[in-house]
Amino acid sequence: MAAPTAREGWLPLASAQRPLYAGVDLGGTNIKAGLVDNLGRTLAFHTEPTRVDQGPEDAAARMGRAVHTLAGLAGIAIDDIARVGLGTPGPMDLAAGTILRAGNLPGWDGFPIRDRVALHAGRPVTYANDANAAAYGEFWVGSAREASSLVMLTLGTGVGGGIIIGDTNVEGAHSHGSECGHIIVDTSPSARSCPSGHAGDLEAYCSATALVARAREALDRGATGSLADAVARGEKLTPILVSQAAEGGDSLARELILDTARWLGIGIVTLMHTIDPEMVVIGGAMTFGGESAPIGKLFIDAVRAEVRARAFPLLAEKTAIRYASLGGAAGYIGAAGLARLAK
Amino acid sequence: MAAPTAREGWLPLASAQRPLYAGVDLGGTNIKAGLVDNLGRTLAFHTEPTRVDQGPEDAAARMGRAVHTLAGLAGIAIDDIARVGLGTPGPMDLAAGTILRAGNLPGWDGFPIRDRVALHAGRPVTYANDANAAAYGEFWVGSAREASSLVMLTLGTGVGGGIIIGDTNVEGAHSHGSECGHIIVDTSPSARSCPSGHAGDLEAYCSATALVARAREALDRGATGSLADAVARGEKLTPILVSQAAEGGDSLARELILDTARWLGIGIVTLMHTIDPEMVVIGGAMTFGGESAPIGKLFIDAVRAEVRARAFPLLAEKTAIRYASLGGAAGYIGAAGLARLAK
Repeated sequence: MAAPTAREGWLPLASAQRPLYAGVDLGGTNIKAGLVDNLGRTLAFHTEPTRVDQGPEDAAARMGRAVHTLAGLAGIAIDDIARVGLGTPGPMDLAAGTILRAGNLPGWDGFPIRDRVALHAGRPVTYANDANAAAYGEFWVGSAREASSLVMLTLGTGVGGGIIIGDTNVEGAHSHGSECGHIIVDTSPSARSCPSGHAGDLEAYCSATALVARAREALDRGATGSLADAVARGEKLTPILVSQAAEGGDSLARELILDTARWLGIGIVTLMHTIDPEMVVIGGAMTFGGESAPIGKLFIDAVRAEVRARAFPLLAEKTAIRYASLGGAAGYIGAAGLARLAK
Repeated sequence: MAAPTAREGWLPLASAQRPLYAGVDLGGTNIKAGLVDNLGRTLAFHTEPTRVDQGPEDAAARMGRAVHTLAGLAGIAIDDIARVGLGTPGPMDLAAGTILRAGNLPGWDGFPIRDRVALHAGRPVTYANDANAAAYGEFWVGSAREASSLVMLTLGTGVGGGIIIGDTNVEGAHSHGSECGHIIVDTSPSARSCPSGHAGDLEAYCSATALVARAREALDRGATGSLADAVARGEKLTPILVSQAAEGGDSLARELILDTARWLGIGIVTLMHTIDPEMVVIGGAMTFGGESAPIGKLFIDAVRAEVRARAFPLLAEKTAIRYASLGGAAGYIGAAGLARLAK
């Protein structure tokens, strides 16, 4: 069950456990901001377009205002927000608080986003990688809330990773920890590359972008069936369209989804043999409605089968592989949770 | 420079900083035990064959006696040893203190080695994976002593891994953390397998065993040259022989070493994109005399080149890749160091 981002699901202020934290999740498309209590429950939510082309200072100002908006929605003073957590897409320099060459934020390289948001919000800011923040959200109050360690993979435009081991959020020595989308799974000469140019990495096979690209290539090679028919009718080729075709029995769509699951399983085995987490959580757009939906179940079962075929048997047996439960709220909740951990 | 395991290099007791710790490194071939002071310096060392076929109770008794031998060599009472650190090859159950199906310890499955060594030594025992212990040794007083995080790969009969992030030794939720030898680097249908049966894992390409197996296969296919000549003369095919042939210009030997480096570089990129350590350390038998030796330099430079070709440029630039400096002493020193951390 996703966290409430619609007003009627918000926790009343009288029921909140203080301190309160604001979480801000900056994506290439949207800014999501939520006010969260000390138990990770949402008191208020606000979202608006990122508008990357208007530049980072404009976005920082709007994120700062969003924090004030949250305070207004909840009926509290800005100083009642103990701290703000900010998650942005990597790569970044966490110590400096700056964005580096983030693929989804062209032209923002070097912008001191942590300090500019802090200035506009008037509150101190804890800065994190967005995928790490989402992982922390699931770890704190989501699918992994009873786990002591977690690897989370967020399959969206790219593949984001988050690794949490007890009290350690694996940020890395150079802010590139948990970049699990860029682990190498295919070393063949014909390996696909991700948009950052890493040959054969997980993102090149398991992102929504990769699924659509592979479907497009198969159709260009003349594949037929209900997916081909839908595209020929002018429907937009998306993971949802592929999933619908697979549910209808289209063999190309099913094979694309199963192939994605096999690559994901390979990547998960490598992560299990490195981290040995108590749980692996899969989130993002490529979750196909979750385990209760036919294709969601087909996909995660195929991931588990690949893991069983390749991992240490003890790990294959004991490591839970689950879908995320917070949906698009994981990022702001986790960012708020990381702010809560900050000193 | 390796730690002193010959009597003349030992630290005099009068110069030692207490508390003192004993480290015991159990391998498939030898038991190595060292007495170490609070700064990781060796006061005494003892080694003897493991004799796997005599069973684990016999080995536990001899490891216990070895701890007493160390006390005798240093001229201290057994109670002057604050704690014993024990490293054994994985897989294991760290919480239970038992060996699981360790490939190098056939028939020892389920043996409660931690408690039996504690009984025979008369001192409390901290239990660790041997490759994690070696990593901790390099982290504490070896090549990585100035790093805040480390991935170490020990290339020997197998490929052992150790990951340290600040105060966290990545042991995993099921004692299988840092099993970096079993990350997947080759997903092609013709991928080699390690002795544990993992297709395409790092160990299948980068262990001493794998180097020798690949040399053997090339010779069986009719490869010629000085390596082939040496083997035809009856010399034993070992990594050292391959290294000597490579140094003499043998093209097969050079290609085998460079190919090993390429696979190792691929594995290291995956680990860098997961952990983002400050340093990567390569230890074990496959270090070819270290960076000051021609083949040692050829090998590590080829590893670095593969990393440069595949990693995030910032990481390729900033992450040091070095050989280990403690040699065969890393295991007992690191085990002692982990005992020092224990509460």
